[in-house]
Amino acid sequence: MGSVDTSLHPHTSGRAAEYAKAHSSTNPLILYGGWFCPFVQRTWITLHEKNIPHQYVEINPYQKDPEFLKLNPRGLVPTLAVPVGRANKQQKPLYESAVICEYLDEVYNDPAKHGPPLLPADAYERARCRIWIDHISGRIVPAFYRFLQHSDSKPYSLDEARAELLHHIKTFIQEADPDGPFFLGEQFSMVDIMLAPWLCRLFLFDVYKGGLGIPGEGKGGEDEQVWQRWRKWAKATEARQSVLDTLSERRQYIDAYRRYAEDTTQSEVARATRAGRRLP
Amino acid sequence: MGSVDTSLHPHTSGRAAEYAKAHSSTNPLILYGGWFCPFVQRTWITLHEKNIPHQYVEINPYQKDPEFLKLNPRGLVPTLAVPVGRANKQQKPLYESAVICEYLDEVYNDPAKHGPPLLPADAYERARCRIWIDHISGRIVPAFYRFLQHSDSKPYSLDEARAELLHHIKTFIQEADPDGPFFLGEQFSMVDIMLAPWLCRLFLFDVYKGGLGIPGEGKGGEDEQVWQRWRKWAKATEARQSVLDTLSERRQYIDAYRRYAEDTTQSEVARATRAGRRLP
Repeated sequence: MGSVDTSLHPHTSGRAAEYAKAHSSTNPLILYGGWFCPFVQRTWITLHEKNIPHQYVEINPYQKDPEFLKLNPRGLVPTLAVPVGRANKQQKPLYESAVICEYLDEVYNDPAKHGPPLLPADAYERARCRIWIDHISGRIVPAFYRFLQHSDSKPYSLDEARAELLHHIKTFIQEADPDGPFFLGEQFSMVDIMLAPWLCRLFLFDVYKGGLGIPGEGKGGEDEQVWQRWRKWAKATEARQSVLDTLSERRQYIDAYRRYAEDTTQSEVARATRAGRRLP
Repeated sequence: MGSVDTSLHPHTSGRAAEYAKAHSSTNPLILYGGWFCPFVQRTWITLHEKNIPHQYVEINPYQKDPEFLKLNPRGLVPTLAVPVGRANKQQKPLYESAVICEYLDEVYNDPAKHGPPLLPADAYERARCRIWIDHISGRIVPAFYRFLQHSDSKPYSLDEARAELLHHIKTFIQEADPDGPFFLGEQFSMVDIMLAPWLCRLFLFDVYKGGLGIPGEGKGGEDEQVWQRWRKWAKATEARQSVLDTLSERRQYIDAYRRYAEDTTQSEVARATRAGRRLP
């Protein structure tokens, strides 16, 4: 979960703006989100993939929606308002993006309406997906922020931070189906969704940190095959409709992440990274 | 997951030794564990609660079982060897204690043989359990190690470390069913299992850190009700058969955790805590 910074563009833009607008009507299932937050994008992609009727409410960080704060006093996004009780008139909150996404996959399970499940039916394969989702949330994502928030005052070098992120990405992609393009093969799954938002933000390292450092086509040396598999996964995932439709314009991300890159943002994720703590 | 330190007692003792002996015969489902590791105990409690036939193999840290290393070259415990393929003759590895426990709950799901499921049938309630399991693994457990490994060279004080652990415990117990005794009420669940091993190790703060600091009966001030609920949970969980049967003798834990308390252990969990990183 991330909280929205206090100096952000208040609205989404580009294709995400269109998608948000198409889901602005009242619905008992509500996603309270922030356009900027990658944890929100995970939930958004899941709703999109499964074609789940919902209402999207952009939380303005300057003036948080009182209905939202009544539902989740901690005010973190994403929060999902889940309809419960008779005639779905009550609402209960869910938070933690991975928990929300698994909930949506479990509840909206009619393949005719919502497509195939996002986690495999086989229990062992499902557990294996959970191991790699944990690797994404617990290793790749924190390494992303340690690299992005690197400054000269850190106890680690920029090269170390870059190498750590690349190491965790390599470990991940080596566990993917060899043919792909997605983690499980032809089937887009929860594992892909969990990493997609950060994939879409990797260009920020070119903007702010002198490059991401993943070798280009044919330049991977002894790791060429690994990086080839990564490029295949990245290309397919970036081109996925649900991923494209939940992205705002690049310049808006560049603005929003400047304070991360300068390590001055006060977002919860950034502060946890700075303190060497687990992300909230 | 934790790895076993290199100067530990090589064998379990007390009631855990009896339980291990009762599960020493060959079985296609194998838990590779270390008596000392709380992440292993989570898996062990789950196997016990669900009465799942299995073989327990104690991993000697001085001489790791070659069969085990073939299965999981990373050598981390707990690792579960899961029988797959025709006549269960092949084995695949699972690791990450929370993933293993959820896998066991999903696969061994005949109530007549294995009792009620350890996660609620209702999707919302199941998601809520996952939120609080995440709170345990992501907040309470790391705070446990920051407190236990406190030394004068840390950038935080002993009192701060203690207060942080107590804060996360309070947040947790306030979400529990008000009557209890367990998190969900009368039903012992995965949420209780995820925290139980550290509950059993809280006495170490009395041994090494001048006390845990949870107020005694009637001494909780304005928080008395919260701590009363905690004491009720703790008493019921500590007395659970599956918890008792997977514990070694106290003196053995005191010896094993001395190097944590002195912050000199080289276990993976300890090193991650020292570096301000997420637990492995």
